[in-house]
Amino acid sequence: MKRMKAKIAYDGSGFAGYQIQPEARTVQQELMAVLQNIHKGEVIQVIASGRTDAKVHATGQVIHFDTPLSIPVSGWLKALNVLLPEDIRVLEIAEAEPGFHARYHTIGKTYRYKWDRSPIISPFTRHQMVHTKQRPDVGKMREAAAAFIGTHDFSSFCAANTGVVDKVRTIRRLDFEEHGEELHMVIEGSGFLYNMVRIIAGTLMEVGLGRREAAELREIIRSADRGAAGKTAAAHGLYLEHVEYEN
Amino acid sequence: MKRMKAKIAYDGSGFAGYQIQPEARTVQQELMAVLQNIHKGEVIQVIASGRTDAKVHATGQVIHFDTPLSIPVSGWLKALNVLLPEDIRVLEIAEAEPGFHARYHTIGKTYRYKWDRSPIISPFTRHQMVHTKQRPDVGKMREAAAAFIGTHDFSSFCAANTGVVDKVRTIRRLDFEEHGEELHMVIEGSGFLYNMVRIIAGTLMEVGLGRREAAELREIIRSADRGAAGKTAAAHGLYLEHVEYEN
Repeated sequence: MKRMKAKIAYDGSGFAGYQIQPEARTVQQELMAVLQNIHKGEVIQVIASGRTDAKVHATGQVIHFDTPLSIPVSGWLKALNVLLPEDIRVLEIAEAEPGFHARYHTIGKTYRYKWDRSPIISPFTRHQMVHTKQRPDVGKMREAAAAFIGTHDFSSFCAANTGVVDKVRTIRRLDFEEHGEELHMVIEGSGFLYNMVRIIAGTLMEVGLGRREAAELREIIRSADRGAAGKTAAAHGLYLEHVEYEN
Repeated sequence: MKRMKAKIAYDGSGFAGYQIQPEARTVQQELMAVLQNIHKGEVIQVIASGRTDAKVHATGQVIHFDTPLSIPVSGWLKALNVLLPEDIRVLEIAEAEPGFHARYHTIGKTYRYKWDRSPIISPFTRHQMVHTKQRPDVGKMREAAAAFIGTHDFSSFCAANTGVVDKVRTIRRLDFEEHGEELHMVIEGSGFLYNMVRIIAGTLMEVGLGRREAAELREIIRSADRGAAGKTAAAHGLYLEHVEYEN
């Protein structure tokens, strides 16, 4: 038995999210269907670094699966990309180190959130960026972002009805990048609570649009109250970009 | 009665082409439905610079329509973009010069054809660029492109079963642009025959991939034989970028 580790990308537009569920198209279901096909009917479990919600994209999701087959790496890459639908691509695949686990061994993740600041939303990227009609003050967003860096209880930035008890996480980087009319928030941390990146993005955009002060952020974090933070930004602006593992 | 002229963009992925037809979603049908709504049930004819085929995109299609309404230009822009589906956007709108006709008064058009040269096709642009696995020799494509410049009978580069008699057209510009892994062909001319840009793109790509010699192109044009040219490149790489009018 070999454990294979793969880096995959997907356009979240056509999926009800990563995780398999009845009567919905999911990334996991498509991956498992193709692996079952390759394994002549045998069900092959696929483990990802974590779930992504409906409409959320990935450019660097990591998965693993176990296989009895001896196929060279280039063969795996080719077979999977031929059999998978075009909105999922396998970017890299390799035999994993012994004991590797895509979910349990993550030590960090990087997400990217994309806004389109064009006066008129582009019809070509409408499922891949969130349009902001009013032009945000990026300087203020950067100023407010500083409050997140470090280790904090992120209860204010977590969907209210989650079962997770320990809400302490570490944010190592939170940058804003401007690429023409695109505005990207890049956030790297030890791990993220449910909806955490989207609530951070939504709250920082409210600062950018002058609806909140940058100075409020530290108090919002301290309050440990979801009601104190801003709205959850839309799913289709979010990309899981990188998953980090110990090596 | 006022004649309004508008520049529009659309993602061709969700359309059976520009021109209205029964039981298919078309750009013209969406535009006319919205204008009928604005005009309280009155049918408003929409005239475009020309049709585009199913899956073909536009970043600068031009249309006109006549209206009895007195709405300021900013009101038109807002109303149309609120009512139209997000895969069609009105980029600019203005009152047209007297006698302006979006179709009859064109004196030139610019099209762009996009290929994606990434080793693995991006799941995000799969409907907006054509993937080429093998890396083309762009220098050879540029060399071959020179044969098209000027005024020629383009019978070799026209879908065989067209009703058009005069197949003489003038190509003023044919450039290749490289943007990272994207390869664009930009072609500007007096007008184009049915499928002409896609047959030129397909033939030049065959040169790029070493399946034809650049030197063959002059003879292919001279032969006035559709069978002598290459394959019609896929529709989803093509963009109508600009329509030129006398001013």
